[in-house]
Amino acid sequence: MIKASFIGIGKIGQTIAYSAMTRGIFDEVVLYDIIPEFPEKFEHGLRRALASLRIDTEVIGTNSIDDVTGSDIVVISAGRPRRPGMSRRDLFADNAKIIINKELPKRNPGAVYVMVTNPVDMMASVFAKYSKEYVISTGDQVESMRLRAYISKILHVPVSQVDGFVGGEHGEDAVVLWSTVAVNGKQVEDLPKEQIEKYVKSIPGDIIRVMGGTTWGPGTIIADIIKAIVLNENRVMSIAVPRQYEDEIIHISIPTVVGSKIGPTLEDHLSEDDRWHLIAAMKDYYSVYKDMLKSIKTEGEIVS
Amino acid sequence: MIKASFIGIGKIGQTIAYSAMTRGIFDEVVLYDIIPEFPEKFEHGLRRALASLRIDTEVIGTNSIDDVTGSDIVVISAGRPRRPGMSRRDLFADNAKIIINKELPKRNPGAVYVMVTNPVDMMASVFAKYSKEYVISTGDQVESMRLRAYISKILHVPVSQVDGFVGGEHGEDAVVLWSTVAVNGKQVEDLPKEQIEKYVKSIPGDIIRVMGGTTWGPGTIIADIIKAIVLNENRVMSIAVPRQYEDEIIHISIPTVVGSKIGPTLEDHLSEDDRWHLIAAMKDYYSVYKDMLKSIKTEGEIVS
Amino acid sequence: MIKASFIGIGKIGQTIAYSAMTRGIFDEVVLYDIIPEFPEKFEHGLRRALASLRIDTEVIGTNSIDDVTGSDIVVISAGRPRRPGMSRRDLFADNAKIIINKELPKRNPGAVYVMVTNPVDMMASVFAKYSKEYVISTGDQVESMRLRAYISKILHVPVSQVDGFVGGEHGEDAVVLWSTVAVNGKQVEDLPKEQIEKYVKSIPGDIIRVMGGTTWGPGTIIADIIKAIVLNENRVMSIAVPRQYEDEIIHISIPTVVGSKIGPTLEDHLSEDDRWHLIAAMKDYYSVYKDMLKSIKTEGEIVS
Amino acid sequence: MIKASFIGIGKIGQTIAYSAMTRGIFDEVVLYDIIPEFPEKFEHGLRRALASLRIDTEVIGTNSIDDVTGSDIVVISAGRPRRPGMSRRDLFADNAKIIINKELPKRNPGAVYVMVTNPVDMMASVFAKYSKEYVISTGDQVESMRLRAYISKILHVPVSQVDGFVGGEHGEDAVVLWSTVAVNGKQVEDLPKEQIEKYVKSIPGDIIRVMGGTTWGPGTIIADIIKAIVLNENRVMSIAVPRQYEDEIIHISIPTVVGSKIGPTLEDHLSEDDRWHLIAAMKDYYSVYKDMLKSIKTEGEIVS
Repeated sequence: MIKASFIGIGKIGQTIAYSAMTRGIFDEVVLYDIIPEFPEKFEHGLRRALASLRIDTEVIGTNSIDDVTGSDIVVISAGRPRRPGMSRRDLFADNAKIIINKELPKRNPGAVYVMVTNPVDMMASVFAKYSKEYVISTGDQVESMRLRAYISKILHVPVSQVDGFVGGEHGEDAVVLWSTVAVNGKQVEDLPKEQIEKYVKSIPGDIIRVMGGTTWGPGTIIADIIKAIVLNENRVMSIAVPRQYEDEIIHISIPTVVGSKIGPTLEDHLSEDDRWHLIAAMKDYYSVYKDMLKSIKTEGEIVS
Repeated sequence: MIKASFIGIGKIGQTIAYSAMTRGIFDEVVLYDIIPEFPEKFEHGLRRALASLRIDTEVIGTNSIDDVTGSDIVVISAGRPRRPGMSRRDLFADNAKIIINKELPKRNPGAVYVMVTNPVDMMASVFAKYSKEYVISTGDQVESMRLRAYISKILHVPVSQVDGFVGGEHGEDAVVLWSTVAVNGKQVEDLPKEQIEKYVKSIPGDIIRVMGGTTWGPGTIIADIIKAIVLNENRVMSIAVPRQYEDEIIHISIPTVVGSKIGPTLEDHLSEDDRWHLIAAMKDYYSVYKDMLKSIKTEGEIVS
Repeated sequence: MIKASFIGIGKIGQTIAYSAMTRGIFDEVVLYDIIPEFPEKFEHGLRRALASLRIDTEVIGTNSIDDVTGSDIVVISAGRPRRPGMSRRDLFADNAKIIINKELPKRNPGAVYVMVTNPVDMMASVFAKYSKEYVISTGDQVESMRLRAYISKILHVPVSQVDGFVGGEHGEDAVVLWSTVAVNGKQVEDLPKEQIEKYVKSIPGDIIRVMGGTTWGPGTIIADIIKAIVLNENRVMSIAVPRQYEDEIIHISIPTVVGSKIGPTLEDHLSEDDRWHLIAAMKDYYSVYKDMLKSIKTEGEIVS
Repeated sequence: MIKASFIGIGKIGQTIAYSAMTRGIFDEVVLYDIIPEFPEKFEHGLRRALASLRIDTEVIGTNSIDDVTGSDIVVISAGRPRRPGMSRRDLFADNAKIIINKELPKRNPGAVYVMVTNPVDMMASVFAKYSKEYVISTGDQVESMRLRAYISKILHVPVSQVDGFVGGEHGEDAVVLWSTVAVNGKQVEDLPKEQIEKYVKSIPGDIIRVMGGTTWGPGTIIADIIKAIVLNENRVMSIAVPRQYEDEIIHISIPTVVGSKIGPTLEDHLSEDDRWHLIAAMKDYYSVYKDMLKSIKTEGEIVS
């Protein structure tokens, strides 16, 4: 009996829930949001999809946090998107207040928490700091799939034959871990590395500019992370697990074995160059994070 | 080698394409729309999803109708949604102009055309009239799944055990074919029929009011119709196939065997009451359709 | 909660159970056989397969018929194979004694019974006669897939694009229903009909001669019938449902809609020629069956 | 385009091929064996299964080694089973002669070779020694799934929540890597370790005694290894990759990341105790292997 709860069902939350539920991996699902009627109507939309797919998962949409109790896995995508003129720090402060939510840990002790809300790695760290629960950030698995899709496209090879991970902090500072990149199991010479790195960083902005955002990629990729946990697939994915760094818990993406047990990370198997980048990313992360933490004066409000 | 083309990739077109492609049933997919850059960016979004799922379908997003050539299946969801103050006739005329598209039949003779654009049944009939190609309307399979989902919810039974179809014209005049309704293979006494019929008709409006539209249900259900065709599943679904009625080809949903061959329809196996409703639906359809056809003065413009 | 029981786990019973269980469609499975330790060891073999596939179905192997209680679906493949020098009548008598089993209907009233034991159609009729329960014969769905596989091979077309059904009694008297045969949705001219019919009838003997029997085909095909029932897929398959013919219930395969509700059959949609063959098959069946029934003097023994 | 070849289609070869092919992961499959007519008839059996599943893989059964050319993956299960009175050394010598096959590497350079023939690890090492090709042994992934299935059974927990690997040489000297064992992501206290270890070693013998052998477990598990390679799943599995040890290449199972690229192994993440066992296994392996190698006087015969 696997019970999953989705906290926040905006566009990305909906796509993750849809993609994960249509694989038939849950017994029970709770869709939670604070907007009145919204989760209930989403429930009705999903029920029709499940009817067509003959999937018997029990699903409820709710505005009551009490329904989010006893979950095995809690996926958090509640929060605000970045608006024009809003600094990253503003986003941090706003969403941290939403995320530092005493209701969730109290009702779901021992669950695996999966953070999606941006800035995703820091939200995971903040949640870990205040809840003491185990939380991962979906981190750079999204970038890793962008990397593979693009190499597949420019080299005209099937995407299933492309390997490679991106690590570090999710977003513009993510780094391609070149020692993991391979096609058909072999390292490739003469890849246009700069062009690839540029693509990995710039494509989300390009998609947002033209389509006003798209959640097909991240929604599917995050659903695959959830599936790896729920079905204990023991798959390597570039996600961020909690790690002690000086006096804080931080979240930096590294290729990591994902199953019902999460870990180990595979940083020791990377090239020295790649490891150096990851160490630098941790240092940067820590320094910015410490600074950001100051913007949370209180322990914040509560989602419900 | 199955080549599928999606014409029009607004919200519903995107959801259908996503849901169908993530099943891995195509070898090649063309995503076509007239909005500049849009199909190309959607392609990039999908490629990341396919990377995560290890699905090797070749996919291109394009503004060039020339890429939509030699398809086995063409899914048409191009067109405008109904705006406030717009009559059904206005929608008919606007979308018929888009749909009566000489470019598609010319480049894809003998393909199976799947109509999604609203008013969906009449758009299928118009397309059949002017293109002479074989076209189905996705019709009431969507309502059929709404019916099953709701019975599952109110009776607390797994949705996979609920049977039942809705027929007639897609939309407010659709009729529940009560002789097909069963739970766990058995007819159910004392179903609250009026309440169920009201739900089937009113839920889309309720979802639109709260969520501003949702494509999870229809997108998945239409993807399942496409899958039944592409994989020749020989499944019974309530779709509309072309049928001669007096001097026109019309499209009215009836439970129909769907595979690489579409048909037969199962109307002879329905109760007399259900059949009477379908006959009435055809008569109404014909009369409205003849009237609507007057709104198309010329044979219309061309998508590209 | 779907509970399935498999009665008799010889080679074919094992393959059906394996193929069905590895789709993840059951909640609980009972593997029953009278051979001591055998079901228990088969359980262990299957558990390792399910571990690898991350499928959580509860499974027990047992020699106690009491465990086969409250099933939703009961698959019967208990019985003896035909030995050299054994007439068909001998097989009928031997297996009827095994099949006419008061323990199963008593413990699983209202279940769907799926007959696999040969002679399969007559065993279904005998079971129906004595148990009064609803039972289908897996009949000619096996021949139908042989037909499609062979047309695919000789015409070099993907098998998913080949349609066609075989009807009548399972075995040497089965008839190709030529009006159902199509490739890519279209009737094919100039098919080598005699060669195809010969193949459909002779290939099982050829496989047995070389490989000593093979259950990969029938096991998968029967698992697909079970899946269509359990997931209510509403798929057309050539199976045999109980049908009153004069004073007996008989089982003759006809393309039939298979879901949690089984039926209607599609005989009215066949060509006159095909229907004529089916009518002749029923007549022959009835006459042989009446004769065979004499070989059962008592109501027989009980499996356990 | 993925082409897979199966060399040797006895019981285990058939089950692996069936289990892998019915997932739809190949474009083309060659089934090769030296027994006349046998592969061709197996092909016919499989074609019917694929027809039912709507899987369009091209498949041929053949006695001609020339058809086994240009494969991406070659699965070798040719060889003899151990007969009564036959020593392990006899089996080694007999099967090594079959396995050291110049025809395969010549026609499939750069393929991934997957060894299944027993003694599986040494056959992989022999093949590597003489072919210079990349070959893995399916090793202890089979034992690992036995381990999980048994813990699931005795603790009454879903098998998908059980983690754990077995390492070392496949067979009676395999060792449970206790530091990898977890339920629901957590280490378990008070497991009956001796009882579990005994089960992992003795269950194959028990199954063989009662059922005369069963390939459902190993066939599925090895198909999952193949799927992880072909779809580049990056999953951790306990297989054996080639490793230099003194003057030989040896194969010892260790949890290893399996994708289109195979590796790294995760031995550094095991407990000291577990690592000590693996080191001891390598030493033992080397010493026995060196001794066994003497039984191959010539470079052996060729399969074809």
